[in-house]
Amino acid sequence: MIEAGIVGGSGYTGVELLRLLSGHDQVNIRAITSRAESGKAVSEMFPNLRGLVDIPFSEPDIAVLSECDVVFFATPNGIAMTMARELLEADVKVIDLAADFRLKDIEEWQQWYGMEHACPDLVSEAVYGLPEVNRDSIREATLLANPGCYPTATQLGFLPLIENDLVDTGNLIADCKSGVSGAGRGANVGTLFCEAGDSFKAYAVPGHRHLPEITQGLTEVTDEIISLTFVPHLTPMIRGIHATLYARAKVDIDDLQSIYEQRYASEPFVDVMPPGSHPDTRSVRAGNTCRIAVHSSPRDDMVIVLSVIDNLVKGAAGQAVQNMNLMFGLPETSGLSRASLLP
Amino acid sequence: MIEAGIVGGSGYTGVELLRLLSGHDQVNIRAITSRAESGKAVSEMFPNLRGLVDIPFSEPDIAVLSECDVVFFATPNGIAMTMARELLEADVKVIDLAADFRLKDIEEWQQWYGMEHACPDLVSEAVYGLPEVNRDSIREATLLANPGCYPTATQLGFLPLIENDLVDTGNLIADCKSGVSGAGRGANVGTLFCEAGDSFKAYAVPGHRHLPEITQGLTEVTDEIISLTFVPHLTPMIRGIHATLYARAKVDIDDLQSIYEQRYASEPFVDVMPPGSHPDTRSVRAGNTCRIAVHSSPRDDMVIVLSVIDNLVKGAAGQAVQNMNLMFGLPETSGLSRASLLP
Amino acid sequence: MIEAGIVGGSGYTGVELLRLLSGHDQVNIRAITSRAESGKAVSEMFPNLRGLVDIPFSEPDIAVLSECDVVFFATPNGIAMTMARELLEADVKVIDLAADFRLKDIEEWQQWYGMEHACPDLVSEAVYGLPEVNRDSIREATLLANPGCYPTATQLGFLPLIENDLVDTGNLIADCKSGVSGAGRGANVGTLFCEAGDSFKAYAVPGHRHLPEITQGLTEVTDEIISLTFVPHLTPMIRGIHATLYARAKVDIDDLQSIYEQRYASEPFVDVMPPGSHPDTRSVRAGNTCRIAVHSSPRDDMVIVLSVIDNLVKGAAGQAVQNMNLMFGLPETSGLSRASLLP
Amino acid sequence: MIEAGIVGGSGYTGVELLRLLSGHDQVNIRAITSRAESGKAVSEMFPNLRGLVDIPFSEPDIAVLSECDVVFFATPNGIAMTMARELLEADVKVIDLAADFRLKDIEEWQQWYGMEHACPDLVSEAVYGLPEVNRDSIREATLLANPGCYPTATQLGFLPLIENDLVDTGNLIADCKSGVSGAGRGANVGTLFCEAGDSFKAYAVPGHRHLPEITQGLTEVTDEIISLTFVPHLTPMIRGIHATLYARAKVDIDDLQSIYEQRYASEPFVDVMPPGSHPDTRSVRAGNTCRIAVHSSPRDDMVIVLSVIDNLVKGAAGQAVQNMNLMFGLPETSGLSRASLLP
Repeated sequence: MIEAGIVGGSGYTGVELLRLLSGHDQVNIRAITSRAESGKAVSEMFPNLRGLVDIPFSEPDIAVLSECDVVFFATPNGIAMTMARELLEADVKVIDLAADFRLKDIEEWQQWYGMEHACPDLVSEAVYGLPEVNRDSIREATLLANPGCYPTATQLGFLPLIENDLVDTGNLIADCKSGVSGAGRGANVGTLFCEAGDSFKAYAVPGHRHLPEITQGLTEVTDEIISLTFVPHLTPMIRGIHATLYARAKVDIDDLQSIYEQRYASEPFVDVMPPGSHPDTRSVRAGNTCRIAVHSSPRDDMVIVLSVIDNLVKGAAGQAVQNMNLMFGLPETSGLSRASLLP
Repeated sequence: MIEAGIVGGSGYTGVELLRLLSGHDQVNIRAITSRAESGKAVSEMFPNLRGLVDIPFSEPDIAVLSECDVVFFATPNGIAMTMARELLEADVKVIDLAADFRLKDIEEWQQWYGMEHACPDLVSEAVYGLPEVNRDSIREATLLANPGCYPTATQLGFLPLIENDLVDTGNLIADCKSGVSGAGRGANVGTLFCEAGDSFKAYAVPGHRHLPEITQGLTEVTDEIISLTFVPHLTPMIRGIHATLYARAKVDIDDLQSIYEQRYASEPFVDVMPPGSHPDTRSVRAGNTCRIAVHSSPRDDMVIVLSVIDNLVKGAAGQAVQNMNLMFGLPETSGLSRASLLP
Repeated sequence: MIEAGIVGGSGYTGVELLRLLSGHDQVNIRAITSRAESGKAVSEMFPNLRGLVDIPFSEPDIAVLSECDVVFFATPNGIAMTMARELLEADVKVIDLAADFRLKDIEEWQQWYGMEHACPDLVSEAVYGLPEVNRDSIREATLLANPGCYPTATQLGFLPLIENDLVDTGNLIADCKSGVSGAGRGANVGTLFCEAGDSFKAYAVPGHRHLPEITQGLTEVTDEIISLTFVPHLTPMIRGIHATLYARAKVDIDDLQSIYEQRYASEPFVDVMPPGSHPDTRSVRAGNTCRIAVHSSPRDDMVIVLSVIDNLVKGAAGQAVQNMNLMFGLPETSGLSRASLLP
Repeated sequence: MIEAGIVGGSGYTGVELLRLLSGHDQVNIRAITSRAESGKAVSEMFPNLRGLVDIPFSEPDIAVLSECDVVFFATPNGIAMTMARELLEADVKVIDLAADFRLKDIEEWQQWYGMEHACPDLVSEAVYGLPEVNRDSIREATLLANPGCYPTATQLGFLPLIENDLVDTGNLIADCKSGVSGAGRGANVGTLFCEAGDSFKAYAVPGHRHLPEITQGLTEVTDEIISLTFVPHLTPMIRGIHATLYARAKVDIDDLQSIYEQRYASEPFVDVMPPGSHPDTRSVRAGNTCRIAVHSSPRDDMVIVLSVIDNLVKGAAGQAVQNMNLMFGLPETSGLSRASLLP
């Protein structure tokens, strides 16, 4: 059994990790920390876990966490980087679901995240946990940067086009729509039911932190310059991201569909839909799958990719478990094979 | 492995059965029938099942179904009764998720359901599948009448009061609220997003088919006459039933909480919440649990019970799997032990 | 023109008052106060008011407010009572949408609201603003206590039964469901989209502040003792209250329908639906109407009343405007006659 | 008073027309037709209209409709074209909210709409009712083609860019999101609450009928070729369209904001938001306003326009009333000046 600790278990990625790990037969949840909720039973805050996760929240304590085999950080940005070194030194593998180790360029990170990085030297050591790109490195990783939700949906959607040098990478558009859980469980007027409900809006058009992450990821698979316009939107649903991706073909693409099918043929968590499909986010609700459909416009040279994930699963906790499975040599789908919830 | 067939797999209880059975390691789904969708892959209609359930819908065919160990009917009322006899004669166990075998009084059934019963003699043989009441009979059953959604939440909420003769059974009220999936997947103006969304209403106040089912169930555990006022409501959510139950205490009830806790102490799927709780339906979303909280009003003699289930799980497909587990001697929780989905 | 001031304009009842008053041709909005938002344009916070309400929020200032003809308090409980006296002395009429002047029993008020009352002597002077009961007094009022949302729906539903001495007043039940806007615009985990969405729950079963208000109102129209069980629920919609009311008939009620129709025949804002109806909350969305349907159970002696309002309109800002109209001798429906919004 | 008739009053644009016209003090609703609902009171189907619209649905009858001053068609495509000639000959002005008269190119119309056009000669006579472009022609029109919902939001968003020749018109993208009411009130599995709720998806990526309408409109204000990629999406809300528009600047655009502000300075129903804004659809819920925000990306040459409308108001019934006002010489804002509904 893998002994797992979770730092920051009181948010949505925290409870989702608990849901997934409580159903993973190779994992024992040893500690869940939350400064604010210390002493309270996890299941008091999250009654869906009653009878399944019976330990209380505790203060984050390096000594206790050091007894774990793996520690997940489901914390706000800026926490994992203050604790990672000690845990790594204690031979604990670290999986950060926040952004502390995602950007290789420290200065860029500091600009976007508005703080000084606590351990720049560890950043280069961290592996970016998108298994569809980095599977082998992930297997060897001890410090894992779990990708953001938008970056997961967007990169998986764009990758086959860019890896195969099929589109103008200087003219990419990602029009992305997220469910409200992406904004977290913090008390906030903007995500109240009566503010976010029955309404739709864009946000952060002038700049969103996931832009450099996506650009970095795409840059790694091409020699071309990546220029991406990224517009996130808030949509009145709980879970789900829908990325609508636009790219200009620079060559004739005869078999777009089979390029995608072949790229992801052996991927357990990427499902290329049949031609003409329009995946809906609920088809991946609670599941770790990314479903993708590709369309091309014969009239002109536009390629349109539709890519959906559950932001809390493949966009956060599920991908973290997938990465843990890889890091510990388990079957990649362990604990992640159940059907999504529809309706 | 249990070979399972599903008749009428294209509705919400059908897809929910498929979701649950596809994650049940003792079951193989052998056939899924749907006249309207025959030949179409199940996963084309329900993409959440892609890669998990790969067979197509087929015409309902007794010969094929007779090769199953168990056949579930996720059909409209009036179908199971026309096929049950042949299947039973072929030694197939039958679990009807519709209402054909729920009411013992044939005339009452015919009045409420507006049709003649096709096999009145089988009705007396059928076991009403509420395991918390009938577990032993269910173990021996070959023909099982799976309870309705409102009846499940309401009976589990009232049972401890009535079994212990604590309340005036002539004055019971069940004010119940259902998510829209309870109305099924049929095209219907009343359940359109723009009709049922962002709105709340009662329906069927003059009479609902679940009233005689609840009354029958409660009558079996008392010598008193049951008189129940049952008002169902439609609430703008997908899954979930919340039953708010009112009863007048006829004796001093000193320890209401412990009466409930003891009654359900060994039940795997009934969770009595701590005193003062208000269970929300999402705490059981996608799970087979019924969560109950009890409140009493010291000012007067009113007992208030809050009982929540997922109408598609404990109120339909999950309870059907629970019953199947019992009928085949499997652990009762097989395939049903995963955490509910929150948020 | 009536010069109107609004204290506490940054919440949902505040913006709703602004919406209604901006469409009222006899009213000029002179001042809107909000300590937290002082200096900010109202329409910056509420873009639906762009071009219609162009003044900024200001600090609450008695001097400025004293120049108004009427001041509405759309504040939390406990504010209006600290400012009412000065305004009344300046000949300003005061309409409190909070609860400061609703309960005549000061001690009971202090218990339920957990603070000392700042001006107990004014309480007896205040008129409870339910026009369907107190129209004449409201016309003469200078200090008006605008009813709560649940109390409005519940009293209007019960009144004909109790005024005519038809039911057992010692055994009343109000099972009420509210949209989330009833909880206000404060940042709060419990009313986040991902907490209150796609879920349903009861709350405050042990006791809710609207209980004594309803009881007081019903007590005024009968010599009998009122004993009410009141259970509020949160339902995933933005606006709307649905009260499902249960009462035991103590006499034969031959013509329940016509009793209701006659009681409300001349009421502009109470609509008794045809027999057999089930009003939905959206039928009153954005409107000041209370729609009521009555059902009786021939089997036993239960009367069931369904009563719906928009909690922000007839349950708050609309009723406040209706009261203002009465207090200033305007047609009662001024500014309130537009159709509700459906879908 | 203008005597108005509505053909096809039982859908969402029909009830919205009724809501708006019932609050328009220069209009009397003379007839509402619906074959399916003939004889039924309008307010029985739409209880929000009780007391406001008291006439019943009637069979469509040219004789009766000919007594009207204006007839609105809130019908499916293909109906207005069969009745328009007779009405026009009877000196009745005709406003078609469907698509029969929108496309000038008859062959293109027939391809997209899959039927033969019944009166091609009238098409050239029809005026396309986007007042922000065609106000003068609308004033003289007797046959008016009311624009589609997506075309309204998209054209108003793109117009200032294209009229001023600022962007590459061969490379336009409109990523549009619609509330579910855009799909109408027909019984349809795809728009059930449990299908469209809590989920998001694209649809009609290979081609949508609003594409040629948008292209035609934009082509009229430029000499350049318009090439537009248009991807509509379904979002789980009742009302609202959010168009996110992308265009490549072909010149330096120094003052994007003021270009938009000047273009729409005198438009009563187009509101250009302050720089940096993200309009949400609820800010126009129930109102006839189109709110627009413009963003430019300094990094590259991308212009991003956010344009929101209520699809049933500015996208249908409200714009029809605005056009009627123009056609009858009334103030353009008559009956349309009330604040939008928030929350």
